[in-house]
Amino acid sequence: MISNILSKYDFGKISIATLASHSSLQIFHGAKAEGFSTIAIVVRDRLWFYEHFRHLIDYFIVLDRWSDLCREDIINKLISLNAVIVPHGSYVEYVGLDCAENIPIPIFGLRKLFRVEANQWAKMSLLQKAEIPTPRIYTINDYIDKPVIVKMPGAKGGKGYFIARNRDEVINGLRKRVEEGLIKSFEEAMIQEYLVGVTAYYHYFYSPILNRLEILGADIRYETNVDGLRRAPQDVLVEIGAEPTFVVVGNIPLVLRESLLPKVLEFGMKFVEETKKSLPPGVIGPFCLESIIDDNMNIKVFEFSGRIVAGTNLYVNGSPYSYLYWNEPMSTGRRIAREIRLALERNAIEKVLT
Amino acid sequence: MISNILSKYDFGKISIATLASHSSLQIFHGAKAEGFSTIAIVVRDRLWFYEHFRHLIDYFIVLDRWSDLCREDIINKLISLNAVIVPHGSYVEYVGLDCAENIPIPIFGLRKLFRVEANQWAKMSLLQKAEIPTPRIYTINDYIDKPVIVKMPGAKGGKGYFIARNRDEVINGLRKRVEEGLIKSFEEAMIQEYLVGVTAYYHYFYSPILNRLEILGADIRYETNVDGLRRAPQDVLVEIGAEPTFVVVGNIPLVLRESLLPKVLEFGMKFVEETKKSLPPGVIGPFCLESIIDDNMNIKVFEFSGRIVAGTNLYVNGSPYSYLYWNEPMSTGRRIAREIRLALERNAIEKVLT
Amino acid sequence: MISNILSKYDFGKISIATLASHSSLQIFHGAKAEGFSTIAIVVRDRLWFYEHFRHLIDYFIVLDRWSDLCREDIINKLISLNAVIVPHGSYVEYVGLDCAENIPIPIFGLRKLFRVEANQWAKMSLLQKAEIPTPRIYTINDYIDKPVIVKMPGAKGGKGYFIARNRDEVINGLRKRVEEGLIKSFEEAMIQEYLVGVTAYYHYFYSPILNRLEILGADIRYETNVDGLRRAPQDVLVEIGAEPTFVVVGNIPLVLRESLLPKVLEFGMKFVEETKKSLPPGVIGPFCLESIIDDNMNIKVFEFSGRIVAGTNLYVNGSPYSYLYWNEPMSTGRRIAREIRLALERNAIEKVLT
Repeated sequence: MISNILSKYDFGKISIATLASHSSLQIFHGAKAEGFSTIAIVVRDRLWFYEHFRHLIDYFIVLDRWSDLCREDIINKLISLNAVIVPHGSYVEYVGLDCAENIPIPIFGLRKLFRVEANQWAKMSLLQKAEIPTPRIYTINDYIDKPVIVKMPGAKGGKGYFIARNRDEVINGLRKRVEEGLIKSFEEAMIQEYLVGVTAYYHYFYSPILNRLEILGADIRYETNVDGLRRAPQDVLVEIGAEPTFVVVGNIPLVLRESLLPKVLEFGMKFVEETKKSLPPGVIGPFCLESIIDDNMNIKVFEFSGRIVAGTNLYVNGSPYSYLYWNEPMSTGRRIAREIRLALERNAIEKVLT
Repeated sequence: MISNILSKYDFGKISIATLASHSSLQIFHGAKAEGFSTIAIVVRDRLWFYEHFRHLIDYFIVLDRWSDLCREDIINKLISLNAVIVPHGSYVEYVGLDCAENIPIPIFGLRKLFRVEANQWAKMSLLQKAEIPTPRIYTINDYIDKPVIVKMPGAKGGKGYFIARNRDEVINGLRKRVEEGLIKSFEEAMIQEYLVGVTAYYHYFYSPILNRLEILGADIRYETNVDGLRRAPQDVLVEIGAEPTFVVVGNIPLVLRESLLPKVLEFGMKFVEETKKSLPPGVIGPFCLESIIDDNMNIKVFEFSGRIVAGTNLYVNGSPYSYLYWNEPMSTGRRIAREIRLALERNAIEKVLT
Repeated sequence: MISNILSKYDFGKISIATLASHSSLQIFHGAKAEGFSTIAIVVRDRLWFYEHFRHLIDYFIVLDRWSDLCREDIINKLISLNAVIVPHGSYVEYVGLDCAENIPIPIFGLRKLFRVEANQWAKMSLLQKAEIPTPRIYTINDYIDKPVIVKMPGAKGGKGYFIARNRDEVINGLRKRVEEGLIKSFEEAMIQEYLVGVTAYYHYFYSPILNRLEILGADIRYETNVDGLRRAPQDVLVEIGAEPTFVVVGNIPLVLRESLLPKVLEFGMKFVEETKKSLPPGVIGPFCLESIIDDNMNIKVFEFSGRIVAGTNLYVNGSPYSYLYWNEPMSTGRRIAREIRLALERNAIEKVLT
């Protein structure tokens, strides 16, 4: 399907399109640095904001709602602009899985991965098949004898997540979330062993063109209210009756102990290999492994993202890691555009689009 | 008054002056990058330190005490050097409100704002008039039924701030601070609703020349002892009898979830508009909104700074945001100098000086 | 001894060698930026990882174990490549003190300092002689009436450290660590007053060539599990029975309140002066003071590192501070190479090698 569309494209006039949210400013900025035109697909009420960055945006496609992306006139517009869609962490969440994976526009990345990512169990299973260490997963019927973290479906930035000490607390928490309409049934939530350690998020870029995996950065998420609660005295917390919540509102830069990097790269390579095997041609471009490091420096990966993550927004001008590979400011957004440019130069664009 | 002085200035020889503290190294660095001469106004016992940065400083004006800034000989010296003062977060604190707002030297920024900033209630009132969401404010006579944070006057970096659970704790805490000489009467302290969420500080730059508002960065403050206490076990805290204190000693970089940026920019624009209305010509150059983000991603602004904040020191070589506007390393310090240069080029220097 | 070896070196072909770990990628990156050849001394099982960075590495010297560094054939290889060794925070830990200080290869830095650093008491004593404020140190026989932190010997990144509230808890904790084989006797551990405040690590560079001390950066360490525990609710912590551990797995950027910088620079200068006096010719190149800042902004230094620290990995492309000194991206790794280059240009290489 995509090769059909590509056959009509003018490769000298490729433009890079993304939904105006998440990491889109970085993606536009990187695309311009590599000489591409850019398309902001934007919902009407955010248009004013993105117009402040019109020096980074050549075309605006204004939608009433995100799901309109798959309307025929929008598709035709995108094709007429020789558009390549760069999916980011909010792409599937915003347009829905059906539109996301069936849109007849070339996508930079592995389209097949969207369906895996949409299902928490399929995600964890992919990590397990890759032989990357993961936390234990419980079902609601298991005997739960130690703390767990319970996660809602979808990439809503941690909304509704909670910690429970036993099965009763899990059930109470889930009941509340059903009432709040966050989930419809208990089965939608994933119950994971609560790992003691620190969180760390690793940003990778797999280049099918250079046939190499790059570590482009790392970050820590800044989550409300949990990262605020730690600043309140215990008696105030009791007074407030505050329970920790885990809504991501930002990211903080991190570098890793260098002796951890071989393991971090190894896990990334395992991820690449497993996707090549079970979801050929395998992951393309940016992905992220999301982990806990314990005090024996064991890393367990509790989630992944198959696309560019928001933590890369820290590194619009390059990261401590990207400077090790590239002697120029290389964000993940720019790296995507660079990969497309390299692919075009080598007549291998079909290697990076699906 | 200022136009009188400006009429004597040699605009080809403008120099940028600031008090040697707070963010002065960034301001000097930025001024040099834009080709200006620089003047460090420094108290004698810090002179040795700033001499280590004499490659960034053309002139030293050495004072015995900060308040000497308004001495006639110092004023004359500044005028002879065609000086523009860049006020930073410690400016009013150091030289006193009278000198700060009456000094007969052109100031980059809105001089009228100093008096508002010197009064916590006037500050909050300005935010409210701008229709920016703020926390509830209590008076000492109110019935206080939930945790509050009590703030001392002046930009002393959080010194003396405390959390209280009820009116009795407020009164006890205030009594202690009167005894310590931090305040003279209870009324000097502001009692604000304790907001549950995470702190985030947004750095803005309003350009009267380009007629646009830029987001130049964001940060989290690093506060002693509160950010250390969270690393101590609960039983040790009890043993120590440690109460959280909130003295800012540094800053940590932050990027925000992109979907929060429209709200962040909107609040900044409201601030600009309100100052244009009630304090014409309105804010000029850098300012900062200081906020809590809760887990519904609501933002409440609990304070502002009408000048360059210390968090911008993170971005001497540009921030993830400033690179989106400027394809060169643009700190807030350099942005100030750039604005002055743009104003000079357009014969509009009176638009940025008051 | 070193002057003998240096007399055989071809100064036009100096190469920079370091153990492939800790901050080696930064060191290689900086060396290349200054035009030097680089040598990665690497243990076999990490070779694959460093081969991903072969664009930064000219020669690999592969060892079966780190201590093979002092084998005659390896020494001869290093000499034939005109190698200068850059010791980093893992150097002594990996190759052992004897090899580290006796290796007949020029070292960038103060070789004599290794022995001091290997002994926690000698380290603290050097700080005290320099008149830098330090925490109180207890012996196991002292009456311990307030919380202490107990530190294991060697630069193992905080492994085994624990907090205790009294002598009984100290003894229990130490007993456990003897059983675990972390220490052989109680006397190996250092018992320090537990300081209430926030941690801050200052990166310095002393240049014998320019005869100046530069502040190149600052950071906060990211430690597992202590920086994760703060995100767990108190009742969960009790359930888990988790005790804080302090294993460094990464670093987070920090800038300091500018009014703290004179004190920070002063402490660094005291350190330089004391090492000149008691360990002539004194410290050369990078070192780090590791501190707690309390809410009166008093700084106490609880440890130092006489070499490049891992926190500098944050600043591969320069730090907010290094940009104040150098109008180009200057990491500590590059600063080392720059110092060697400056020394070569001025025929003063013996000033920076020992």
